Amino acid sequence: MTFLIDGLQYANWSERIFRQLRAGGVDAVHVTITYHETFRETVLNISRWNRWFEQFPDLIFQGFTAADVQTARDTGRTAIFLGAQNPSCIEDDIGLVEVLHRLGLRFMQLTYNNQSLLATGCYEATDTGLTRMGREVVAEMNRVGLVVDMSHSAERSTLDAIAHSTRPIAITHANPATWHPARRNKSPRVLQALAESGGMLGFSLYPHHLHGGSACALDDFCSAVARTADVMGVTHIGIGSDLCQDQPDSVVEWMRSGRWTKSVDFGEGSADAAGFPAMPDWFRDNRDFGNISEGLRRVGFSAEDVTAVMGGNWLRFFDASFTGQTEVLQSQRAAQ
Amino acid sequence: MTFLIDGLQYANWSERIFRQLRAGGVDAVHVTITYHETFRETVLNISRWNRWFEQFPDLIFQGFTAADVQTARDTGRTAIFLGAQNPSCIEDDIGLVEVLHRLGLRFMQLTYNNQSLLATGCYEATDTGLTRMGREVVAEMNRVGLVVDMSHSAERSTLDAIAHSTRPIAITHANPATWHPARRNKSPRVLQALAESGGMLGFSLYPHHLHGGSACALDDFCSAVARTADVMGVTHIGIGSDLCQDQPDSVVEWMRSGRWTKSVDFGEGSADAAGFPAMPDWFRDNRDFGNISEGLRRVGFSAEDVTAVMGGNWLRFFDASFTGQTEVLQSQRAAQ
Repeated sequence: MTFLIDGLQYANWSERIFRQLRAGGVDAVHVTITYHETFRETVLNISRWNRWFEQFPDLIFQGFTAADVQTARDTGRTAIFLGAQNPSCIEDDIGLVEVLHRLGLRFMQLTYNNQSLLATGCYEATDTGLTRMGREVVAEMNRVGLVVDMSHSAERSTLDAIAHSTRPIAITHANPATWHPARRNKSPRVLQALAESGGMLGFSLYPHHLHGGSACALDDFCSAVARTADVMGVTHIGIGSDLCQDQPDSVVEWMRSGRWTKSVDFGEGSADAAGFPAMPDWFRDNRDFGNISEGLRRVGFSAEDVTAVMGGNWLRFFDASFTGQTEVLQSQRAAQ
Repeated sequence: MTFLIDGLQYANWSERIFRQLRAGGVDAVHVTITYHETFRETVLNISRWNRWFEQFPDLIFQGFTAADVQTARDTGRTAIFLGAQNPSCIEDDIGLVEVLHRLGLRFMQLTYNNQSLLATGCYEATDTGLTRMGREVVAEMNRVGLVVDMSHSAERSTLDAIAHSTRPIAITHANPATWHPARRNKSPRVLQALAESGGMLGFSLYPHHLHGGSACALDDFCSAVARTADVMGVTHIGIGSDLCQDQPDSVVEWMRSGRWTKSVDFGEGSADAAGFPAMPDWFRDNRDFGNISEGLRRVGFSAEDVTAVMGGNWLRFFDASFTGQTEVLQSQRAAQ
């Protein structure tokens, strides 16, 4: 059985996009539900998803465990797994880690570009690594089954998280910096430590992360995936498209500037190109994953390895990551 | 005219303590109203103070400007200036700086022991200095007239704040590390930069900051003040007693552990001595400031210098600090 899983999207969701997920055969997707929102604001965003699950039960449902990906396939729907791109949703309260996991949060970035209470983002000048609270929160995330995501984090913080976390972590949406040097892309040292610890890299299709930007060629992208598979091993990579479909530019402003500055931070963009960049023409929306599968075959991936990269690896990672350590121990005891 | 001003207290406030303020002739005191509380929780604490102002109008009132210290003296009451020991009250929202200043907040620490969104606390292993948000927030605090307080901050962050702030900053409650080495006490480099920038150091009477702890002798303390006056200049020092009168030990637990850990952080204390330490016998409460004045005279301070240290310096600092830059410009224009 082959599965198609996307490691990160942040679309302006609508029935049209849900139908495109189905048209593209996407079994599961990790969706960002919050950036700088407080806990209460994040719960509002969860409620919005609950309304979508209620309105479109034939297209989507909320995923909580890896088994839900199989359920999605069996019932012809897409399982939606929730995630956070910044720890604002736990505010300063370690108790909210377990609460949000119970509500279905399955990924949480420790930072988004800036310093957080937990670690350092990739746009800060100095990198603390994990803070005192960061070490405590990572241990709690490990305990309940909330994946540490370091996509927007700085180098030392990412290495610290990999070392300190007792469970493999993810970089859900970023590319190798050797292919395209960008603050958001990751060094060989980080990718090596990630692979050695059993973690996952989701390849991003967001133009600022691509060699050549929006004009990046499919074969160029697929060759970069192939070279990374040679270094990290083909079992540690997947797709994390970072598709921000139909979002107005006001959304990327919120992502970058939040409430931390009175001016505008352009992040990966610039004053001249402040908005969302155009996606490459071979990946416009969820119906185009087939182009990537074909491209991977063309640069030499076996059919089996394409299956792994397009979903199998994420499924194995979901299976190992989303269940709490207490529940894992209980099921191990029950099996004895 | 001589004034008695205390640069920081965090008592378990009651009519009894308000009467002790009057018995001790305290004209003004900066009181901590919040540590790890969110904005909404901080507003609850402000409301609690509003009820005290309503209940005890003959003893206390809220201070907003330096002129309120004169009003306090003229009317035989104590002016209460509000402050925060951590920036949790602005959450991740720079807009809350102006809102809280309007509500009367006049001091805000950028950190309390741990890393914050703005800077690094003195108990972290690595010190970022001011973060991206920290630089933005300091500029906004400068604009509205909210004093940057680095009492619980780490070295580099403190030096950064002094350098980046366009207005003098304060260390409201700490002592020189050369007198008593403790993480909370300050290095010669910090004290020199503080004095050169026109800032203020409030000498703490909290036993963990004192040479000899609770048994510290009054003359030992006053000699340390004298040596610091020689280095910093007598105009840059005052008292910030850190009096935590009548507080249950649950309060020091909140101060240290907040909601960032599931275990207990002992901060300056230890598992064997987890609670509030006993105050020195020469400074039990607000009625004992006279002992310090006498002690300062005894180690050689002139009457004039004692007046400066016991309140004159804080008054000058309040006068320069609490008014917004817009209002300062307006009054300068009006005077031309």
